[in-house]
Amino acid sequence: MTTPLRLGIAGLGTVGTGVVKIVQRQAALLEKRSGRAVTISAISARSRDKDRGIRLGDYAWEDDPVALAKRDDVDVFVELMGGSDGPAKAATEAALGAGKDVVTANKAMLAHHGQSLANLAEDNGRVLRFEAAVAGGIPVIKALTEGLAGNEITRVMGVMNGTCNYILTRMENAGLPYDDVFAEADALGYLEADPKLDVGGIDAGHKLCLLASIAFGTNVDFDNVQLEGIEKIETTDIEQAADMGFRIKLLGVAQMTPRGLEQRMSPCLVPANSPLGQLEGGTNMVVLEGDSVEQIVLRGPGAGEGPTASAVMADVIDIARGTRLSTFGQPAATLSAAPPSATSIPAPYYIRLQLHDKPGALAKVATALGEAAVSIDRMRQYGHDEPTAPVLIVTHKTTQEALDQALAAMAETDVVEGSPVAIRVEAV
Amino acid sequence: MTTPLRLGIAGLGTVGTGVVKIVQRQAALLEKRSGRAVTISAISARSRDKDRGIRLGDYAWEDDPVALAKRDDVDVFVELMGGSDGPAKAATEAALGAGKDVVTANKAMLAHHGQSLANLAEDNGRVLRFEAAVAGGIPVIKALTEGLAGNEITRVMGVMNGTCNYILTRMENAGLPYDDVFAEADALGYLEADPKLDVGGIDAGHKLCLLASIAFGTNVDFDNVQLEGIEKIETTDIEQAADMGFRIKLLGVAQMTPRGLEQRMSPCLVPANSPLGQLEGGTNMVVLEGDSVEQIVLRGPGAGEGPTASAVMADVIDIARGTRLSTFGQPAATLSAAPPSATSIPAPYYIRLQLHDKPGALAKVATALGEAAVSIDRMRQYGHDEPTAPVLIVTHKTTQEALDQALAAMAETDVVEGSPVAIRVEAV
Repeated sequence: MTTPLRLGIAGLGTVGTGVVKIVQRQAALLEKRSGRAVTISAISARSRDKDRGIRLGDYAWEDDPVALAKRDDVDVFVELMGGSDGPAKAATEAALGAGKDVVTANKAMLAHHGQSLANLAEDNGRVLRFEAAVAGGIPVIKALTEGLAGNEITRVMGVMNGTCNYILTRMENAGLPYDDVFAEADALGYLEADPKLDVGGIDAGHKLCLLASIAFGTNVDFDNVQLEGIEKIETTDIEQAADMGFRIKLLGVAQMTPRGLEQRMSPCLVPANSPLGQLEGGTNMVVLEGDSVEQIVLRGPGAGEGPTASAVMADVIDIARGTRLSTFGQPAATLSAAPPSATSIPAPYYIRLQLHDKPGALAKVATALGEAAVSIDRMRQYGHDEPTAPVLIVTHKTTQEALDQALAAMAETDVVEGSPVAIRVEAV
Repeated sequence: MTTPLRLGIAGLGTVGTGVVKIVQRQAALLEKRSGRAVTISAISARSRDKDRGIRLGDYAWEDDPVALAKRDDVDVFVELMGGSDGPAKAATEAALGAGKDVVTANKAMLAHHGQSLANLAEDNGRVLRFEAAVAGGIPVIKALTEGLAGNEITRVMGVMNGTCNYILTRMENAGLPYDDVFAEADALGYLEADPKLDVGGIDAGHKLCLLASIAFGTNVDFDNVQLEGIEKIETTDIEQAADMGFRIKLLGVAQMTPRGLEQRMSPCLVPANSPLGQLEGGTNMVVLEGDSVEQIVLRGPGAGEGPTASAVMADVIDIARGTRLSTFGQPAATLSAAPPSATSIPAPYYIRLQLHDKPGALAKVATALGEAAVSIDRMRQYGHDEPTAPVLIVTHKTTQEALDQALAAMAETDVVEGSPVAIRVEAV
């Protein structure tokens, strides 16, 4: 193929700017590797006049991304606007309908409309690719969809929200409470406009459900991701976890169980000396496990101009080279609806509670656990000046139901102050 | 495509057996993901009667792999015999000449004949793929060739020989000398028939030159990999390195410098708290750095039946899906001959020497370093009962030439016993 591959880019924020820079700076390299030139025909963004430090004069300008998506001189529509609905979705649909391939970094759009967009792409004989939507610069979509395609995937795990990992590691390293570090992260511009997207686990949950779809051949099912954010994590939990050889991470886990598809995005304890436990700051990590490959760990920058643009360009170059892949690794029509698992695979749990200092108090807690068939692996009660004593428990493997029953029974005693904190320990 | 993709498999050792198992066990999954069935038409191996725990009765048998490679009912020749020349090369050439695609795990063959085989593949319009040749189950060829294709690659590093990493971590953890651990590894069957392939860095060097070809668009050039094995590493070096916050790894490094292409496979000190430093036992790790993506780290099993077969199947599924890629990421004819760099990028070095215990001895060593313009970052002299004292030095960044000059000058003094040990400190 000697005709250039012509891009139409919608959205010139951090990622869009990065894509334009790569196309300009690495034109010769892209042509050598793709076998054809990669060019930009037209762009669209909110503000035409903003100085982004890049030359845009050679490209046609469209105020309307839908008009951009349908232009005759565009082969690939590169959607970098964001937002699950609205212009991003309208323009993506228009592009596919007009016979364009689409590359997007939009995890929210795919988490909510991935199945219908994949159907639309295939109905039109086009590809819809999204390497940049998950874990930034890490080529995890490619690793899972292609590199491990010979495996029955058994589990996918990931720390995929750099902001949360930054907050948790900063709480640990500086000994600062959540609210202080949250304010710091906000001041540094690390948080989404709606911070709940980050700290509530929603953004990472979007990414997890896309990986789960590929891994298990199932429909994208964000609604059944069990979401729990990091807002309730206290410095004491981080310290106690560290003291017992663990670190707390906002960890996504997806696995197919006999009871259905389990998708969780929640704070978990992981061994401090594991690759996940050693992950610091804003870096992302994805762990892929398969029946043949055992375990692959991928680590890299989860955000930022260069890394995310690198992922966008991987999809663009695939298209330039003539690689045509299904959106989620198999024809969209063959993806199945997996029943969501009502419960999680049994695991140990870390429990922290405040115990009233009176005779028989610990016995009541132990009884509550025992009657729910939750057995104790380790327990510590600390010295204290308050009327209540901090008690830490790590259980043996137990089900979520048994744990919930034990916690409910504890709440009915008169010896536990407030609600106990319970955090799952994930085997990694 | 609804016709099956038909494999002819030559070699039924660990990897070949693993491939047969995946094709049999995951037939439905492979068909769903590939869009067509993946079947085995014929096999070839040294012994027809050996019990490998797999059913082979459905497949035609060929004693001669060249005959297998040319069979009409074979679409993809899967070369898993090994050996840089001989039957593996003859059969690969026969397959490409007969219009078959080829998937191989043979790093030695590609390190020595990669360019000519890639030329042959392209002349015949076929693909030659080798994911399994580098770092076992880690999809690193795909990550580099496709996932990071939008990047100018700045450096590739890897711990890619599990046996060496096992030996080094075992020496550290058990405090045992090299010879003892080597004997252990031999007894466990971890070593190649010619152990020099492992401990001399040759096997890992084969892998490094394949990565370098893709990364820098250059001809495969194994002859210019600077090879240094782990045979001279002593337990004391491992302990001293650990004491200063480092670990010793057999590390491959490839980078394009203004002076040419640098390819080194040698023991290096890396920070103990880096991903490379934390790598234990037989696991492999590859670090890919690019101008946009910054740094990606891939970790996984570097050998074994399941993981290596997983990598073979990734290539097979690519072919089944219709993905057609150049062997080294761009047309073979466009790969350039890079001049090998005569020297390495400056780095700090760890030096250990035995100093005669007499007045002015340390001054003579310091003078040798100073006159070669090598400056000292840290130095330690230990207490001792022997007539010589162990001295450890970590230099500031210096060139290999300056270091060699300093070491030569030390040898000419009368205060240094034997040859100093010098190990590069790689920034990771």
